[in-house]
Amino acid sequence: MTHDTAGTAAAPLAPELVARYHRDGYVLLPPGSLAGDLLDVALDELPSILAADDPGRVLERDGRTVRSVYGLHRTNPAIAALTRRPALLGAVRGLLDDDVYVHQSKVNIKAPFAGDQWEWHQDYVYWLTGDGIRRPDLVNVAVFLDEVTEFNGPLTFVPGSHTAGLLASTDADGMPLGYEDAPAWVATLTADEKFRVRHCVIEELARANGLVSPKGPAGSVLVFHPNILHCSAANISPLRRAMLMFVYNSVANRPEVTGLRPDFLADPEPVALQPI
Amino acid sequence: MTHDTAGTAAAPLAPELVARYHRDGYVLLPPGSLAGDLLDVALDELPSILAADDPGRVLERDGRTVRSVYGLHRTNPAIAALTRRPALLGAVRGLLDDDVYVHQSKVNIKAPFAGDQWEWHQDYVYWLTGDGIRRPDLVNVAVFLDEVTEFNGPLTFVPGSHTAGLLASTDADGMPLGYEDAPAWVATLTADEKFRVRHCVIEELARANGLVSPKGPAGSVLVFHPNILHCSAANISPLRRAMLMFVYNSVANRPEVTGLRPDFLADPEPVALQPI
Repeated sequence: MTHDTAGTAAAPLAPELVARYHRDGYVLLPPGSLAGDLLDVALDELPSILAADDPGRVLERDGRTVRSVYGLHRTNPAIAALTRRPALLGAVRGLLDDDVYVHQSKVNIKAPFAGDQWEWHQDYVYWLTGDGIRRPDLVNVAVFLDEVTEFNGPLTFVPGSHTAGLLASTDADGMPLGYEDAPAWVATLTADEKFRVRHCVIEELARANGLVSPKGPAGSVLVFHPNILHCSAANISPLRRAMLMFVYNSVANRPEVTGLRPDFLADPEPVALQPI
Repeated sequence: MTHDTAGTAAAPLAPELVARYHRDGYVLLPPGSLAGDLLDVALDELPSILAADDPGRVLERDGRTVRSVYGLHRTNPAIAALTRRPALLGAVRGLLDDDVYVHQSKVNIKAPFAGDQWEWHQDYVYWLTGDGIRRPDLVNVAVFLDEVTEFNGPLTFVPGSHTAGLLASTDADGMPLGYEDAPAWVATLTADEKFRVRHCVIEELARANGLVSPKGPAGSVLVFHPNILHCSAANISPLRRAMLMFVYNSVANRPEVTGLRPDFLADPEPVALQPI
C-alpha cells in the first residue's frame, strides 16, 4: 500500500484528527485532503442531479426550489465512484474500525434567498427508529460544493454533544406544513424535524460547550458524528450553499429493519465498499 | 464644552468614524463609548417593557413571542432620557449636521429558537412613503442588549449600499401570513417586508461589496444609515438577541404627512432634543 498526500491510499486519518473527531464530534478538512477530484466531479454532476424528476428529490415549502436529492450513490455512477475514493474510504474505515458501505447519500442545496433552515436535531435517531440500525457506528461526510460562510446557512454544531447519547424526546405527529399530501417519510426530511430535542437540553449543552459553524472554501470536507447535535439557519443571503453528503455505516451495523423506507433513504444492499 | 471619554459632552464622533460611516453606511462602537449607562438602564427597563400590554407591541407569527415594542421614547421616561445622553446626541447631530429628535424607537427581541428573520430591506422607504420624510437624513442607533454573535441572528449589511439610493421596487399587497386581522401598519413590521428589493439587485450589490454582520458584546452601539441594505436571519440558537433602537431625524426633515400612522411609529412632536 502506498501512502501519499494525493490520497490514493486507503489510509486512516492522522491520529490527532481521529482524536479530535472523537472529542468534538467533527473535523473539517481542507480542500483536496481526501480526494482531489471530489469537488470537480460533484459540480459536473450537479446540474443533471437537480434537473432530474427523481423520487428522491425533496422541494422546499415553496413547492418549487430543490431542497435535497437523495440516493445519488445508487442513481449516479460518477457520485457512486466518489464514495469509493481510497483516502475517503480509509478515513471512514479508520473512524469506524470496520468495513463500510453508504447507507444514505444526498445533496442539500440551500438556494439563495430560499433555502430553509434545518431545526436542531441528531441524525442517528432517524436511522435507529427508521431502519433499525442498532449502534451509532456511522459517519457523515459533507463535501462543500460552495464556499460556506456565516451568511449562507452553515451547519451549526454543539461540539462534543455526540457524547451525550440520544437526546430526542418528542416524536411529532402528523405532517409538516406544506407537505400534507406527501408520503410519510418526507416528514423526516423537512425544516420541521420529526424528532425534537427539548429546548432546555439544547440551551444547557450550548452554554456548556459553545456553538461552532465550520466554514471553508468549496471542496472542504466536514466529517461529523451521527449523534452530534446540529442545526442550520435559513439561507437569506444571495449566495448558494450546496453540500454533497455521504452517510457511511459499518457493515457490522447493518439495518435490522428493511423495506420500510425507500431505497434512496436506506440502502438495501449493505455491501463493503472497495477502494477504486 | 468639555470633551471627555466618559461621554458627557455633546461632541461629534471622531473624524475617522464619521468618514467610515459615510463610506460604509455604518460604524460599530464598543460598549461605553457613547454613554456608560445605556446598557444598564435598558436592561433594567426591559422586563416591564416586555410585560406591558401596549399597542406598540408586535408579536411573532406564533402569536405568543414578543418580536418588537415600539414608541419607548414616548412611553418610558428612563428610555426617553437615554435618547438625550450628550455623547449620543452629539454623535448623531454631527452626522446629520442639524438638531435632531427621535422619529421612532423600539426594542427588537429575537427570542431564542423563535425570533424570526427580517427580510432584505432599506428602512428609509417606510419613512418616505409612510410619513412623508423627504430626505434620508436620519440615523439608526442600535444598542446591543445581548452579545451579538454569528449564531443569534445578527444584522447583516451590504456595506456601502446606502450610496445606491432607493432600491425597493415592489409594494407587496395584502397582509402577511399570520397577521390577517391586524391593522394595516403591522405589514411594515413583520418578517415579510412590504417593500422588497429585487433579488438580482441584492446579489449584484453583495457580490460587489460583500456582506458584513457587525458583532460585539452587550453594550456595543451600531450606528447605521437609513438607506443601507440589510436583513437578519432567524434566531434558531438558544441565546437571545435583543436590541434597543433609536431612529433620529434631522429637525429640518420633519414628516410632511402626519396622523396616518400611530404615534409609536411616527413621533408627532418633532422637537429638537437637548442633552441632559
